[in-house]
Amino acid sequence: MPIALLTDFGTRDHYVAAMKGAILSINPQAAIIDITHEIEPQNIKSAAFTLLACYRDFPAKTIFVVVVDPGVGSKRRGIAASSGGYNFIGPDNGVFSFALEDDTKIVELKSSEYFAERVSSTFHGRDIFAPAAGHLAKGVEREILGPPINDPVLFEFPKPHPLHDGAVMAEIIHIDHFGNLITNIAQQDLPERFRVEIGGRPIGKHRKFFAEGESGELISIVGSSGFLEIVVNQGSAENLLNAKPGQNFCLTRED
Amino acid sequence: MPIALLTDFGTRDHYVAAMKGAILSINPQAAIIDITHEIEPQNIKSAAFTLLACYRDFPAKTIFVVVVDPGVGSKRRGIAASSGGYNFIGPDNGVFSFALEDDTKIVELKSSEYFAERVSSTFHGRDIFAPAAGHLAKGVEREILGPPINDPVLFEFPKPHPLHDGAVMAEIIHIDHFGNLITNIAQQDLPERFRVEIGGRPIGKHRKFFAEGESGELISIVGSSGFLEIVVNQGSAENLLNAKPGQNFCLTRED
Amino acid sequence: MPIALLTDFGTRDHYVAAMKGAILSINPQAAIIDITHEIEPQNIKSAAFTLLACYRDFPAKTIFVVVVDPGVGSKRRGIAASSGGYNFIGPDNGVFSFALEDDTKIVELKSSEYFAERVSSTFHGRDIFAPAAGHLAKGVEREILGPPINDPVLFEFPKPHPLHDGAVMAEIIHIDHFGNLITNIAQQDLPERFRVEIGGRPIGKHRKFFAEGESGELISIVGSSGFLEIVVNQGSAENLLNAKPGQNFCLTRED
Repeated sequence: MPIALLTDFGTRDHYVAAMKGAILSINPQAAIIDITHEIEPQNIKSAAFTLLACYRDFPAKTIFVVVVDPGVGSKRRGIAASSGGYNFIGPDNGVFSFALEDDTKIVELKSSEYFAERVSSTFHGRDIFAPAAGHLAKGVEREILGPPINDPVLFEFPKPHPLHDGAVMAEIIHIDHFGNLITNIAQQDLPERFRVEIGGRPIGKHRKFFAEGESGELISIVGSSGFLEIVVNQGSAENLLNAKPGQNFCLTRED
Repeated sequence: MPIALLTDFGTRDHYVAAMKGAILSINPQAAIIDITHEIEPQNIKSAAFTLLACYRDFPAKTIFVVVVDPGVGSKRRGIAASSGGYNFIGPDNGVFSFALEDDTKIVELKSSEYFAERVSSTFHGRDIFAPAAGHLAKGVEREILGPPINDPVLFEFPKPHPLHDGAVMAEIIHIDHFGNLITNIAQQDLPERFRVEIGGRPIGKHRKFFAEGESGELISIVGSSGFLEIVVNQGSAENLLNAKPGQNFCLTRED
Repeated sequence: MPIALLTDFGTRDHYVAAMKGAILSINPQAAIIDITHEIEPQNIKSAAFTLLACYRDFPAKTIFVVVVDPGVGSKRRGIAASSGGYNFIGPDNGVFSFALEDDTKIVELKSSEYFAERVSSTFHGRDIFAPAAGHLAKGVEREILGPPINDPVLFEFPKPHPLHDGAVMAEIIHIDHFGNLITNIAQQDLPERFRVEIGGRPIGKHRKFFAEGESGELISIVGSSGFLEIVVNQGSAENLLNAKPGQNFCLTRED
């Protein structure tokens, strides 16, 4: 079972390596995969979305260690959850909100014999979460890592707000490396025909794939995560629209 | 046999992780290596050069999955090639142009039983190419992945243009992280003695290694990829010359 | 035993991949971990600090390959060291200064049968250091890689300078991705009560963890590497203070 890491640690310091070293010290056979370490610092919801966008692509039993942890050292709990056949380890601050399903079981990480020998007040990624992942991958039962809890911190997924006549006020929830604007409108919630307007600017046709747009044309597509995206074929919708994460826009049903 | 990934996906989204998850879901033992994910978006030739610069350093049978794919979803084909003892998987858009040798055998990826269950129109890296790599690494024969083709899209390597008296008009084909200017003049095509001028500025001596230059001095060397490079010892030729990829320059033979 | 890589090669070229390919060509089972490849070009001391900050988190026998190597091709030696149960491979230019302990044993890499077939003058990371790591991980004895040496290049760790009345002139030795300022004052050298002033600006309270600071407040903590850090809860001390690596500041003992 792979261990997949998702943090806001960046890639130029030693922090991610320290976590990997801690995992390998416990479990030299662990297969460690990076999701990304470039979550905006302290942006818990961005980490939650990134996890949502890829966790189902991993094999069953994968252990996701997510460390976006502004409350490290405080009374916020550390948790290990199982849900949908996957394992999740990290701070109890909502990072797993969009991945935990109805079958979720959670323990609070309290069994200090599975922590690092010395636990710092500022780096539980290395001292608590990585060791927990190493032990879990080695066969230690989650139940042994601490007592069960049933009140994890959870965020609601930011759903579009219905307006009138089937129109909705929606939101850009993520802007990717290409400048594609990923929205909070799920494929199954799209009307058959619709118009999108953002920042006073109408978006062109809805298409199946990028190359159906003219080079430089603003279009909408259903992206690979299953959400409506506003994109430019061979260009950046972010730059063209000067768009920001969290920005609202309007989708209107057409008959 | 390792699976080496080369894309323009960047490193801050979930895209690379989704590919790795898809590979591991099919082949949990796969050893996955990143070449880079920072190819300029949609720059097929840059990916082709980066592949050329390192593929021979990998062990035989390595599977290179290259996804710089502006035509995803359109009629452009997906292919699996074998050449020179290596395997190559990705879109048929020329990304493998500089790595395919005379012994190349190619199939078009058409056997949908080796695709993801649901294939998106925008992310064949995850839904077609990663699964093909996982299966190939597991022992599935390339021939089973689809029918043979013999007309892949291929680019010519951008060779220098001969001028007069042994002079050539050459080109910067890549600028690296250090600001070294990698040119299209192969070591074996260098005259014994030559002068280089770029942007009206003469380059200093030709040297064997960086530290032979004065600190801050512009020199030429044969770089580790076997091409002439214009470099600055402990500095950036890119910054000093305000150089751009694709920029032309003149090399003159000296007697 | 894992092989951990630390370089200034950046992540957008083929250089790191070439090293990994070279390792896997010799030792297909090698578990390769990236520490970082974003050390400032040619900044040997920055690499030395990053190695110090994480090497003890790795399992015994880990092979650290550190390539920040402005002298590549010149007469600077390549070395393989063992120290404290770990292995270190790279140029003899001081990169291992902060990790080598009293039990250090070093050989100069001279046995060319353990080099790549062709050794370039500009990329010993690929042609000498990666192969040495591959062979070492496969069980080749360090002693076989070359003759012993006992005069490696070593830097002194930049210790704070004592002033008067227990005050010290200290230094920012690293600024991390979050903008935390890591100083050269080790936890064990901290007076019980102290004041810190930097750039004429007094730092607020000394705390145990980030979230004890008000949002945006400048505080000091002992960071996860065991050094005093100047930080901002949910913000960047680097930006707030316009701080630079190498910058001096004053710590005064309070009674």
